[in-house]
Amino acid sequence: MLYIIGLGLGDEKDITLRGLEAVKKCQKVYVEAYTSLLSFGLSSDGLSTLEKLYGKPVTLADRETVEEKIDDVLLEAREADVAFLVVGDPFGATTHTDLVVRAKKLEVDVKVIHNASVMNAIGVCGLQLYRYGETVSIPFFTETWRPDSFYEKIQRNRKLGLHTLCLLDIRVKEPSLESLCRGKKQYEPPRYMTIKTAIEQLLEVEQIRGESAYNEDTSCVGLARLGSEDQMVVAGSMKQLLLVDFGSPLHCLVIVGETHPVEEEMLGFYTLGEK
Amino acid sequence: MLYIIGLGLGDEKDITLRGLEAVKKCQKVYVEAYTSLLSFGLSSDGLSTLEKLYGKPVTLADRETVEEKIDDVLLEAREADVAFLVVGDPFGATTHTDLVVRAKKLEVDVKVIHNASVMNAIGVCGLQLYRYGETVSIPFFTETWRPDSFYEKIQRNRKLGLHTLCLLDIRVKEPSLESLCRGKKQYEPPRYMTIKTAIEQLLEVEQIRGESAYNEDTSCVGLARLGSEDQMVVAGSMKQLLLVDFGSPLHCLVIVGETHPVEEEMLGFYTLGEK
Repeated sequence: MLYIIGLGLGDEKDITLRGLEAVKKCQKVYVEAYTSLLSFGLSSDGLSTLEKLYGKPVTLADRETVEEKIDDVLLEAREADVAFLVVGDPFGATTHTDLVVRAKKLEVDVKVIHNASVMNAIGVCGLQLYRYGETVSIPFFTETWRPDSFYEKIQRNRKLGLHTLCLLDIRVKEPSLESLCRGKKQYEPPRYMTIKTAIEQLLEVEQIRGESAYNEDTSCVGLARLGSEDQMVVAGSMKQLLLVDFGSPLHCLVIVGETHPVEEEMLGFYTLGEK
Repeated sequence: MLYIIGLGLGDEKDITLRGLEAVKKCQKVYVEAYTSLLSFGLSSDGLSTLEKLYGKPVTLADRETVEEKIDDVLLEAREADVAFLVVGDPFGATTHTDLVVRAKKLEVDVKVIHNASVMNAIGVCGLQLYRYGETVSIPFFTETWRPDSFYEKIQRNRKLGLHTLCLLDIRVKEPSLESLCRGKKQYEPPRYMTIKTAIEQLLEVEQIRGESAYNEDTSCVGLARLGSEDQMVVAGSMKQLLLVDFGSPLHCLVIVGETHPVEEEMLGFYTLGEK
């Protein structure tokens, strides 16, 4: 049996009792580091926090494992109980649908244990979840690669009065260009997009496209470390949020659509200078 | 301090470790029964399952408490640690934004502990969460009240190739018409909309509006008891799903938009007759 278990957003204590029970009975435990494990005590002191809680060793499944060696994990799961831990929900922002498809093809039984993800925890800012349109991703721009398909989506959402959740790029274990040339694996340091960078890119695209999908006075909410003890939520215009230091990652951004009175009141609590 | 704690979707074991820790240190624990507590051992044998896990009494906050007496709960939370438990996530399908606003106005500190909700757990059917448009609610039609504002929303989502999550009506503790006339509180038995009823209402509205937003051959996914041990997921046309017995509540429905290959593969696992 393969258990795909959501860890939630904050730290090791955000696992559910059901999830912890499953981990305890598994013979092998993997934790996926493809996306982000910032607050789970993994970045510097290894896997100690999770291993202490679970009482057993945990294997880090990095990008390479997930992309190239996942069938080995699945074959193990045919013979034994294997846990595959994922930050957030197994089907949250980064999806594991492909993993389930491969498991089913190999006739491995799969059980999913859900948890909070950015897709619902974003509700904390007070904007109603059913008033969001399509979610967009903002990728890091490079000199030569500046994809802006998010622009039409934001434009469409705003025309309909809907809010837009912007997921900001995460680059973990990206092979360096140099290492690709040399055929030797070396990785770039991890990069997490800040709200500032996201807004700069958004405004750059607006300037080029010029269709007034939004502008620097458009109302937004910036959220950092959502679901953690030290989460930060600030509402303000794009221009205002550019000046806010949101601190360490992860960041995300909501572009506000039309608001109802209760939504307004909640945003008021997070608005710069008003409280 | 007021702790608003998500219980998740399945049963009492879906609370997080962080949530359980908070409950244990609270002097008073309320659980909201406004929406649904079907699988939390509350419908017949009282609060025993939760109380046993928490090791303390739990007070049921019914619709009346939530609508009329919530300020009493908030005043308690000024003096002591109070837990307010909610099925799913505190900001999931049914929102508790208003509760937070009232708490902040009364200067009660609020801490939110997130969990899975239908808004992210729906990912289990294989359709990517960022490919959903606006969520719609399907209310029970009555002889005289047949609101169909969901129709334009579904139409819009489908034009954009987006999936639509349909949340189906729940009627718990509705005062009976008779009791309203007599000025004495008596309640209708709880009602939970089935996928069958939802599809019948959807097709009725399509027949009246006639704008081909969808039809009986439109691809859908029906989900019952999402996140529970006995959850059921079936993909098929509206016509096909009408014939499926999804069993006990809660039900929800996804109207499928344009699909990518991985989404197709996942739906294949849930498609009637194919597997």
